[in-house]
Amino acid sequence: MSATTSSSTLQEPLTPFAVLDRSVIDANIDRLERRLADLNLPLRLHVKTSKSVDVTRRVHREGPQPIAVSTLAEAEYFADDGYTDILYAVGLAPAKLDRVVALHARGVDLSVLVDNTDQAEAVAAASRVSGHRIPALVEIDCDGHRSGVRAESPELIEIARILHDGGAELRGVLDHAGESYFSTGAEAQARDADAERAALITAAQRLREAGMPCPVLSSGSTPTAHSPSEKGGMTELRAGNFVFFDLVMAGIGVCDLDDIALSVVVTVIGHQSGKGWILTDGGWMAMSRDRGTAAQKIDQGYGVVATLDGEIIPDLLMTGASQEHGILELRHGSGGELPELPVGTRLRVLPNHACATASQYQEYSVVDRTGDPTRILENWPRCHGW
Amino acid sequence: MSATTSSSTLQEPLTPFAVLDRSVIDANIDRLERRLADLNLPLRLHVKTSKSVDVTRRVHREGPQPIAVSTLAEAEYFADDGYTDILYAVGLAPAKLDRVVALHARGVDLSVLVDNTDQAEAVAAASRVSGHRIPALVEIDCDGHRSGVRAESPELIEIARILHDGGAELRGVLDHAGESYFSTGAEAQARDADAERAALITAAQRLREAGMPCPVLSSGSTPTAHSPSEKGGMTELRAGNFVFFDLVMAGIGVCDLDDIALSVVVTVIGHQSGKGWILTDGGWMAMSRDRGTAAQKIDQGYGVVATLDGEIIPDLLMTGASQEHGILELRHGSGGELPELPVGTRLRVLPNHACATASQYQEYSVVDRTGDPTRILENWPRCHGW
Repeated sequence: MSATTSSSTLQEPLTPFAVLDRSVIDANIDRLERRLADLNLPLRLHVKTSKSVDVTRRVHREGPQPIAVSTLAEAEYFADDGYTDILYAVGLAPAKLDRVVALHARGVDLSVLVDNTDQAEAVAAASRVSGHRIPALVEIDCDGHRSGVRAESPELIEIARILHDGGAELRGVLDHAGESYFSTGAEAQARDADAERAALITAAQRLREAGMPCPVLSSGSTPTAHSPSEKGGMTELRAGNFVFFDLVMAGIGVCDLDDIALSVVVTVIGHQSGKGWILTDGGWMAMSRDRGTAAQKIDQGYGVVATLDGEIIPDLLMTGASQEHGILELRHGSGGELPELPVGTRLRVLPNHACATASQYQEYSVVDRTGDPTRILENWPRCHGW
Repeated sequence: MSATTSSSTLQEPLTPFAVLDRSVIDANIDRLERRLADLNLPLRLHVKTSKSVDVTRRVHREGPQPIAVSTLAEAEYFADDGYTDILYAVGLAPAKLDRVVALHARGVDLSVLVDNTDQAEAVAAASRVSGHRIPALVEIDCDGHRSGVRAESPELIEIARILHDGGAELRGVLDHAGESYFSTGAEAQARDADAERAALITAAQRLREAGMPCPVLSSGSTPTAHSPSEKGGMTELRAGNFVFFDLVMAGIGVCDLDDIALSVVVTVIGHQSGKGWILTDGGWMAMSRDRGTAAQKIDQGYGVVATLDGEIIPDLLMTGASQEHGILELRHGSGGELPELPVGTRLRVLPNHACATASQYQEYSVVDRTGDPTRILENWPRCHGW
């Protein structure tokens, strides 16, 4: 699977299909890289949003750098492209250790994540049996969002001890401020970032005091990575969504609508004039069922609608979705006028959640708004499954 | 792509993966077929739920029968398997006519759906240019749910006239009581079914009075197809979801939890004991973001949890989802006790919406609970994309 060049425009592929604007991606990358350069802090790009080596190459222009993945399928796909420093950033199901070991046998430095003694014992046992010292990070829970042990908990030491003494490689600690996706504004995000950092520093200190190594302190999320908070003590930042951004990130103030690189092209297939509805051929299969902005101050429905050129149409939202039908209407109370969009008109819809929408597609059609914004330059495939 | 046999069990493939119980599918098919036999009404199976020829063969044991599809990719995939009577049941984007004509050139009787004069003119023009009289149905709006023209509207005659006089084949009228997915109980569903039927009969009568043919009256949805209402005058019923059923259908009383054929196998990867959470490796990528039961009397979260054998665990729900993490907890207020499910335990999760969950997978692992419910008998692939 690799990129193919194209000589068509966004008027040609049958709808729905996913579009990326590579100039927007480049600007998003540039923004975070400038920030990390100031901090002298390396980025471990989370590739679960794009799952595309072509997108990742926009970040890693000089060749593979450290990445985080959400599935072993991603790890294998990126390993095929020469990536060797890969963190599998989801708590490990022990049955997956054979595939982890197989990646080590290929020369990939794949680290895994654990937050309990059962997992730690399984990783230690697989290390002893395979002869590969599998590197593992202990997941720290900094905000009660999901998984991980508390930095102050006795379990942290217990888990680390099993790894360290049992034949695995205790590589360090990791956390993720998942709650920051619900924190609006720079101040709230800075508090999340501070909590992320403080938890790791505490955890690392406890490990060292217990006589164990803790070379890696890995934290991050797109909101906290972009927060202008103190990062001292971290050894790497993880972020992934920022490459594409989306309406949820715009809703909490991490980006503007203009920074969203991913959209879905749909075609108008009808109207219900009495109700002010425009019907399209892009439903939830095209956008995903993600309604992340429903919980935000401004609910963007299933997406914000733009022209095929990428110009946002004021107050036009995708408000309804069947499997292969979308309903567009004006934002309730906007007082605007429904634009005339005849059957056959193509539009772009910006998604709530880039990770979810992108996952509905096998490839991306790539444009660049610094030139003709509807000219497709390349098609970039992406990986799937587990 | 065709079925492959398997000699493994549900303990073997790495999680998450999708499971079908074929004995449940067969019972679901048998139930609807008995009803339709009483009515002497043919079924046009909607294949958008399974997108699998192997599932469809459970219905069409003697060979291909009429089907409805939601994408041209499905039409082509089923045409490859010998299907020749296919209804593309989503309002047509005119640019798709080349692919429609290509299917006709292969000998497929593919009918299309229109609800406005622009579409009708495009179908008529493509018929004249290609020399294939493309069959089209006019979509009737029976409940204000989505698309279609009202049975009493002047547009109905106008659209039909363009098709009939313009070189296309006016094949009839179609409706779909989409609102029936929100109607709980047999009485409400019978009202929806009556409205579906009445709208088609009115529309057909008006076409015939205007001197045009209307051989096909096609209606249906899983709830209305199962409703014991009068169906006289219809020429076919469409239904698709019933093959798998799901929590939304159970929530409105169309099926029981036991009738749900699709589930997702996940693995326990950790616990947050203080909160009563069990973490799994099945998140929204595994289940989809569909939360159809959120609007129902009983909110089932992201899914109802069962053992690997398929026994439902009382009050255990998947309440939270990240991309690759699921959170299981007891239904709030249930007063039950969280079962002990150690790291590594495999569970099945029953989905809100079978169409959405199934679309997250490239294939199904097929079991049969009349024998060993964890033995995988076959793997059935499915089609994707547009």
